[in-house]
Amino acid sequence: MGLKRYSLGIDFGTLSARAVLVDVENGEEIATSIHEYANGVIDHALPSSGTELPHGWALQDPKDYLISLETTIPAVIRKAGVQAKQIVGIGIDFTACTLLPIDNTGTPLCFDPKWADNPHAWVKLWKHHATQPEANHINETARQRGEVFLARYGGKISSEWFFPKVLQVLNEAPDVYATAYKFIEAADWITLQLTGAESRNACTAGYKAMWEKASGFPSNDFFKALDPRFEHVVDEKMSRSISPVGAKVGGLTAVMAAKTGLQPGIAVASANVDAHVAVPAATVTREGIMVMIMGTSTCHMVLGKKPKIVEGMCGYVEDGILPGYFGFEAGQSCVGDHFAWFIKNCVPESYENEAEERGISVHLLLEEKASRQKPGESGLLALDWWNGNRSVLVDADLTGLILGCTLNTRPEDVYRALIEATAFGTRMIIEAFESNGVAINEIVACGGLPEHNEMLMQIYADVTGREFKLVRSAQACALGSAMWGAVAAGSAAGGYDDINEAADKMAGVKDFSYKPSPNNHEVYNQLFEEYRTLHDYFGRSSKSVMKVLKKFREEARG
Amino acid sequence: MGLKRYSLGIDFGTLSARAVLVDVENGEEIATSIHEYANGVIDHALPSSGTELPHGWALQDPKDYLISLETTIPAVIRKAGVQAKQIVGIGIDFTACTLLPIDNTGTPLCFDPKWADNPHAWVKLWKHHATQPEANHINETARQRGEVFLARYGGKISSEWFFPKVLQVLNEAPDVYATAYKFIEAADWITLQLTGAESRNACTAGYKAMWEKASGFPSNDFFKALDPRFEHVVDEKMSRSISPVGAKVGGLTAVMAAKTGLQPGIAVASANVDAHVAVPAATVTREGIMVMIMGTSTCHMVLGKKPKIVEGMCGYVEDGILPGYFGFEAGQSCVGDHFAWFIKNCVPESYENEAEERGISVHLLLEEKASRQKPGESGLLALDWWNGNRSVLVDADLTGLILGCTLNTRPEDVYRALIEATAFGTRMIIEAFESNGVAINEIVACGGLPEHNEMLMQIYADVTGREFKLVRSAQACALGSAMWGAVAAGSAAGGYDDINEAADKMAGVKDFSYKPSPNNHEVYNQLFEEYRTLHDYFGRSSKSVMKVLKKFREEARG
Repeated sequence: MGLKRYSLGIDFGTLSARAVLVDVENGEEIATSIHEYANGVIDHALPSSGTELPHGWALQDPKDYLISLETTIPAVIRKAGVQAKQIVGIGIDFTACTLLPIDNTGTPLCFDPKWADNPHAWVKLWKHHATQPEANHINETARQRGEVFLARYGGKISSEWFFPKVLQVLNEAPDVYATAYKFIEAADWITLQLTGAESRNACTAGYKAMWEKASGFPSNDFFKALDPRFEHVVDEKMSRSISPVGAKVGGLTAVMAAKTGLQPGIAVASANVDAHVAVPAATVTREGIMVMIMGTSTCHMVLGKKPKIVEGMCGYVEDGILPGYFGFEAGQSCVGDHFAWFIKNCVPESYENEAEERGISVHLLLEEKASRQKPGESGLLALDWWNGNRSVLVDADLTGLILGCTLNTRPEDVYRALIEATAFGTRMIIEAFESNGVAINEIVACGGLPEHNEMLMQIYADVTGREFKLVRSAQACALGSAMWGAVAAGSAAGGYDDINEAADKMAGVKDFSYKPSPNNHEVYNQLFEEYRTLHDYFGRSSKSVMKVLKKFREEARG
Repeated sequence: MGLKRYSLGIDFGTLSARAVLVDVENGEEIATSIHEYANGVIDHALPSSGTELPHGWALQDPKDYLISLETTIPAVIRKAGVQAKQIVGIGIDFTACTLLPIDNTGTPLCFDPKWADNPHAWVKLWKHHATQPEANHINETARQRGEVFLARYGGKISSEWFFPKVLQVLNEAPDVYATAYKFIEAADWITLQLTGAESRNACTAGYKAMWEKASGFPSNDFFKALDPRFEHVVDEKMSRSISPVGAKVGGLTAVMAAKTGLQPGIAVASANVDAHVAVPAATVTREGIMVMIMGTSTCHMVLGKKPKIVEGMCGYVEDGILPGYFGFEAGQSCVGDHFAWFIKNCVPESYENEAEERGISVHLLLEEKASRQKPGESGLLALDWWNGNRSVLVDADLTGLILGCTLNTRPEDVYRALIEATAFGTRMIIEAFESNGVAINEIVACGGLPEHNEMLMQIYADVTGREFKLVRSAQACALGSAMWGAVAAGSAAGGYDDINEAADKMAGVKDFSYKPSPNNHEVYNQLFEEYRTLHDYFGRSSKSVMKVLKKFREEARG
């Protein structure tokens, strides 16, 4: 028996990057290293010049990504005590759509002192939301022209995606637009840094840039209709060459090998979206199983053999999650964020004191109190729209609601109602999939929430009437990336030849699962009908009180 | 110039009684004494035996009322340093409908050891709410029979009123019903104790017991339709002799004079509802002016020359507030309670710490933060139904709602939204009056809230577009009672011959008033339309989500 072989997964999150070294044979996670970005999310002022940013902006500094590579990779090699030659491949996952303008050497425009003070030269993070006007313009133009791609995305393009962000640069900083050699997803920029080769992954191209395997990008005519200067955006500022997920982009360059301590030439996999790499890490390599990545927000992913139009999906992309399948994606934009907001803003001092005296967290105290309740007992019902609604309504202007309050309403009642609301939101998504022919027979959950929130998981099982399995790994994204790294290496180099094989060997679910209680499910079935009534009343009307209030809020804030 | 003359007002509240000695000449409040009831609100178990009470019950101990008389009256005489002979009259106001069963000596049934362990032998406090089935039965029967009295009360009898409470005794404790010599309002029981004479005041009879000056009580046939045993309830358990407001019930008995230190024989005025005595104390003795008593809940009172049917009024009663006028009353069941609930359940530790460091109350901190906002700036809108809706919907099954929440919503946003919601609720009531021909040209406010909440009062002015004047006295109810005591004494005994004269001399408003800002009023006009949309959507449908949730809550709680 030769030396053990390892693969490296690097998960670029919103605030930090995490490298995990994984045993190719069994998926065991040998070592982890995390690097927090020095500049984090840049949403108030540019770190270089102090130039202030308008409301809704969210930028990042690509230097933080490079430093992440140069610190976390040597750290995991050192911690694991393995030899560099034992590491056969690298996989990358990243937040998306997170993009940046680069020059013809691949250098970010914001590294150039000439452009460093222009916010449009920096990385636009996924949650940069100042692009709603551009998204509205794209949606309106696509509707008027009857563009067929719109249906693939549930009828609406999000302000978070690729073309709204690039169009904002053209509108507000035409000099940056003109100077940029290309605009590229940060995920693909990392593989460019590692290999020297530009390669755009099918996943972000499909989910965020309206690309599809059969027809490519939207037509030049469409882009011209948005703005005559935008007609040739794909050919001038992007690339039509798209790599399937799991493809080998190239070998690690000597320069990057020296900086990271890895061996030059090892396989680098085509990058991918963070949530999407979790699918094979959740053992899911076939249709009919929903993978839910539950954290600050939740992503729902399903594989299917055929394209289907489902209301409010973030999109479906052929080969977008696994080769040979259509990957369907939906999302809830406020899940863990919801509970964090509640803990920060709504928990009284008496509860803080009780938690402190008992030496437990406020989260745990609330869970303990709330878990004593039966479904319906609080009398509360909430709409989980504190951060708008991604699926199925795709409407950032919707806001949160809580109903049923009395003078006896206690913090744990509201806490439970918020959890139930997110579970109802998940059920809306499942029903939208199923009623449009995308079967969901099983659910596998991963992410931060399922690890630590028993009551929440039981409520999800009870509300949806489905069993929730749990991914074995607590670092499913990094594991998934490492799996793709092993596939890029191939069996000849000590990896695997396809993702099914990698999933069989490297991925797993826990023995324990959450099973629905029939009695609770029966009550929740009835409460869900009330949720649906509120959902449709407030969510499906352009005259919704929520939208009027948002208009007033904006006017009052000037 | 002879000795100064004084009148004594005694205000029986929910948790305590307050005696105030007032200078008859100018209304100056010379001395105050407060007694907190030892048994307060009895809502969990009987204090004597520990017998547990079902959900929704609220009782009181009449001994607390007697001790209040015997402690507060001597205290104010002592504090004021006046001679007993200088005190010319006594007026009483009380919460309503608060009633008790008595024997033929006027002794409460609960004082009899034989009955002390039966909850139905005790005082049923105004907020005893376990009588909703009886109220539903009365409303349904009255509707089916086309009883005209229903319209006087906005189409619905409240569970808090006289006959639902007495009918509950008949239903659940027929032995108590049979044994009771009479059922009597606590207000009238106090004047019975003071004078030895039974006298039932027109105000509670009219507002709480469906009596009207012209036609008296509902017919025996109606009561028979409710329950054959209830046919003669008025003649068997009440009295048809009703005193107008301000009438002299009799002179103080020698026994009570000895217990209180007052002179025997001084005038005792017919008792009255707490909110209603505030009207003349607010200088209001003519039509077109609304008096708002703003505290834990709010009462709205208006005088009119003609009877009018207004949706959701608590009722109108001829001579019910002032002789010669129809007294219109409406109410909001959750105002100060709302803010107290919020402070107790929803204010985070960081705010508590900030308030403590700065040496201010949390209320004040929230007011300070919230008052920096413009109307509409929070993006929030609430329905102020944490305790149901009294006017104009008369529906205890409605519950509170808050809408427009985002991850940026802060405690001060919610606090302000709750205040705005109660102001919108007031505006609904004003509009209901005005659209039914009851003019409201001015508003005078009194109670605990206007004294201490500048932002709240300004919001009320801005939302309603009306000037809010403030009653000069911080103890308007007790002052009003003292004014009625002076009127009962009459000018011959050193008082006044009518309430107009008493109001001219003894009552006043402050120099300062709250005037609406035209700009804010304009924004609130638009927000009010959204409030109205929510109000009607959730409040006017029997299929309202709120009612369904309440049903589930009750089922879950068994």
